[in-house]
Amino acid sequence: MKKADIGLIGLAVMGQNLVLNMESHGYTVAVYNRSPERTDHFMATTAKGKNIIPAHELESFIAALDKPRKVMIMVQAGKAVDAVIEQLLTFLEPGDVVIDGGNSFFKDTIRRSQYLEEKGIHFLGAGVSGGEEGALKGPSIMPGGSKEAWALAGKILVDISAKVAGGTPCCGYIGENGSGHYVKVTHNGIEYGDMQLICEAYFLLKELLGMSYPEMQKTFAEWNQGDLDSYLIEITADILSKTDSETGKPMAEIILDRAGQKGTGKWTSQEALDLGVAAPTIAEAVFARCLSAQKDARVAASKAIRGSALQFEGDKASFVEDIRLALYASKICSYAQGFDLLKEASKAYGWSLNMGEIALMWRGGCIIRARFLERIKEAYDRNPNLENLMMDPYFEDILFKAQAGWRRVVAQAALMGIPAPSFASALSYFDGYRRESLPANLLQAQRDYFGAHTYERTDKPGSFHTEWLNI
Amino acid sequence: MKKADIGLIGLAVMGQNLVLNMESHGYTVAVYNRSPERTDHFMATTAKGKNIIPAHELESFIAALDKPRKVMIMVQAGKAVDAVIEQLLTFLEPGDVVIDGGNSFFKDTIRRSQYLEEKGIHFLGAGVSGGEEGALKGPSIMPGGSKEAWALAGKILVDISAKVAGGTPCCGYIGENGSGHYVKVTHNGIEYGDMQLICEAYFLLKELLGMSYPEMQKTFAEWNQGDLDSYLIEITADILSKTDSETGKPMAEIILDRAGQKGTGKWTSQEALDLGVAAPTIAEAVFARCLSAQKDARVAASKAIRGSALQFEGDKASFVEDIRLALYASKICSYAQGFDLLKEASKAYGWSLNMGEIALMWRGGCIIRARFLERIKEAYDRNPNLENLMMDPYFEDILFKAQAGWRRVVAQAALMGIPAPSFASALSYFDGYRRESLPANLLQAQRDYFGAHTYERTDKPGSFHTEWLNI
Repeated sequence: MKKADIGLIGLAVMGQNLVLNMESHGYTVAVYNRSPERTDHFMATTAKGKNIIPAHELESFIAALDKPRKVMIMVQAGKAVDAVIEQLLTFLEPGDVVIDGGNSFFKDTIRRSQYLEEKGIHFLGAGVSGGEEGALKGPSIMPGGSKEAWALAGKILVDISAKVAGGTPCCGYIGENGSGHYVKVTHNGIEYGDMQLICEAYFLLKELLGMSYPEMQKTFAEWNQGDLDSYLIEITADILSKTDSETGKPMAEIILDRAGQKGTGKWTSQEALDLGVAAPTIAEAVFARCLSAQKDARVAASKAIRGSALQFEGDKASFVEDIRLALYASKICSYAQGFDLLKEASKAYGWSLNMGEIALMWRGGCIIRARFLERIKEAYDRNPNLENLMMDPYFEDILFKAQAGWRRVVAQAALMGIPAPSFASALSYFDGYRRESLPANLLQAQRDYFGAHTYERTDKPGSFHTEWLNI
Repeated sequence: MKKADIGLIGLAVMGQNLVLNMESHGYTVAVYNRSPERTDHFMATTAKGKNIIPAHELESFIAALDKPRKVMIMVQAGKAVDAVIEQLLTFLEPGDVVIDGGNSFFKDTIRRSQYLEEKGIHFLGAGVSGGEEGALKGPSIMPGGSKEAWALAGKILVDISAKVAGGTPCCGYIGENGSGHYVKVTHNGIEYGDMQLICEAYFLLKELLGMSYPEMQKTFAEWNQGDLDSYLIEITADILSKTDSETGKPMAEIILDRAGQKGTGKWTSQEALDLGVAAPTIAEAVFARCLSAQKDARVAASKAIRGSALQFEGDKASFVEDIRLALYASKICSYAQGFDLLKEASKAYGWSLNMGEIALMWRGGCIIRARFLERIKEAYDRNPNLENLMMDPYFEDILFKAQAGWRRVVAQAALMGIPAPSFASALSYFDGYRRESLPANLLQAQRDYFGAHTYERTDKPGSFHTEWLNI
């Protein structure tokens, strides 16, 4: 019997679809799941008649694999990954490769990488993005780990990944140990930002301009033809066109405005705080979800807290264009924050991340896929050491031209009482970053006043302290 | 020889001043420092002739203490605290009390609390705020830990704390284990918010209205006579009046606008993210410091990134009042976020935090001390289960009246390219919280579209999934 090219543990939908994807690329795949019923069901349905070898025990699963063995783990992030790795260690031999394709926290991946490589087992922590459909048809894959692991297992990952622009794969070696999962988490943080920015645009069209669902659908569909062309804008247009069959109302109107947050946006924000990187737009997106989750409190507040806001009195059509500009400019700032985080993480954790290649890996397969990411790749081609995306001439020009409209949108939202936290925060970020002087001089004076923390001077180096009360 | 009522380890300035404060309240204090030179210097200078017993070895330090012994540790947060505790365990007996008065992370305090109480040693993790001057003259003290520890050592802490309004001490039992340090960290997060909000007000007065330093000093001094009356506003007026003796320029103008962040604002923001509490204004304050730290990048950006902003054309005097209203309203929102964090932490960690009492402990001694905190105490007296500070009638009324000016400030800052991230974020928080419906319905639709995450409906309970592409 032919041995399997790779084995996969964990047959939830993502796992199943990755198996089918591998098989469709000519690989024979062994599969194992903790509960054998799921394996049997998979084999009896979508896996039927395919080069997929089921196993009910880990031992027979391992025995089915060609050497050096390649095992991909698709189980819930956390303790389950450690448990599976411990079980695997009973059977694996030095030279085998383990790939964790789940949403593991990068510090766990760093730890596991060291643990396994010390035993001679090669390890990849691979971020996989694109949801169920991506897993089946080609996801974006971000693998980090040892070069040996990449040399042995990289080809399979590249083969099953999404392809864009004439076959460029949305998968490439990211860097050592936890870098792949780190890049995936940052991708998710950016995804949080993108989704929140689109929500704010939708909310302004609806609440400030009073547009109907067909009008909004048309607007997003038009936006998808231009610079904003992206998967998330495309599906937003789809969503806005959908009618609820039960009530006949627009589908979006019957969906409860209470969002969860699974943790990756939170991790990105916390990491930014740890590394001292300003990522306010992404953090505001996470906080917006927190606020959305407080539905009962908001319903009570809507009756108890009085608003005092103006009504819109401008030209609607030109304001729609302003909102588009605000969305595009804010998106650039959000990506600038995400890539700045990657730059600092690359320094802090000793990776040599290639920003342009990462942008290209997000070009297809994943949730934030967009034409826009090619522009980011080009920016890093022009200057691989780009300090901030906003400094690239292409993006600087867009931000310059979008600015007046963007400012009007943030101002109008403030005057009219419509929350647009990520638009506003992106604009503050832009205005703060491009400012030679910020008011932190006063803050340093305060800290020196009450805590003798000292300050630096503008005219000479050193640390200084003032006796503030001696006038 | 008389035994000491309490011993203190760690004679940096904070430690020395706490010792002097205790001694001035009639306590005999034993002192120990790792390097004996510091102890000797202290004894030869400020401690000279006082009821302070020096020790060069831990053993003689312990021997100098009356039983049950009370030992306060004032060393750097982190491993040093654990090291001192391990050393102390050689000498202490069940029934003794250890007080960690440093800025320990609350999770470390929870761990140490359990570790020591299991050995019969009582433990308090006490947040101490007020800087060097507060330590000497009366700080705000937030002690958490076992009730036994509080019964034994509470009186000393209350005696040395700041007193306000006819003798009310700014110290009281907070709750179990890490609660005291948690409340202290949240205090610091709120302090980050306060300082950033003041910086934004100053920046708008200076950059948008072009006010001189004497004009700004006068403005802050006036503000300090009204609702904004607080230590930080008071010292801001002092700072703005100070001239640099070397250059003759306003002191604030020669201080470099590059701020550090020591970690407590970051912890507060990260905790808010962990507990799913919206605390965007505090997070923006931390990110503003991150951006300030990128001085070189900003200088480069100020030359490369083109701005396109309007000039101010309104009435200056009325805009100064708008800025005051924006500062006051944003401050209320920032405190609302901080107290919401305490409310959720109280649930999550099993504390029974008393918000009114906590507000009162911050009324004096600490950096955020302000008349305003009495209003917060009153709000929690009116309703101990207040869901959010903005829901209290007194604060709701202020927010209603401040709103128009606040909105104008955020709008003008956006139009004129002056970053005011915390003002803007506070307004978005206010407008988001008081809104029955937010755009998270679209976000839930997107998540269901690309990941089959399901959504809730507005008209019936349950989880639902739509096949979005079947039109």
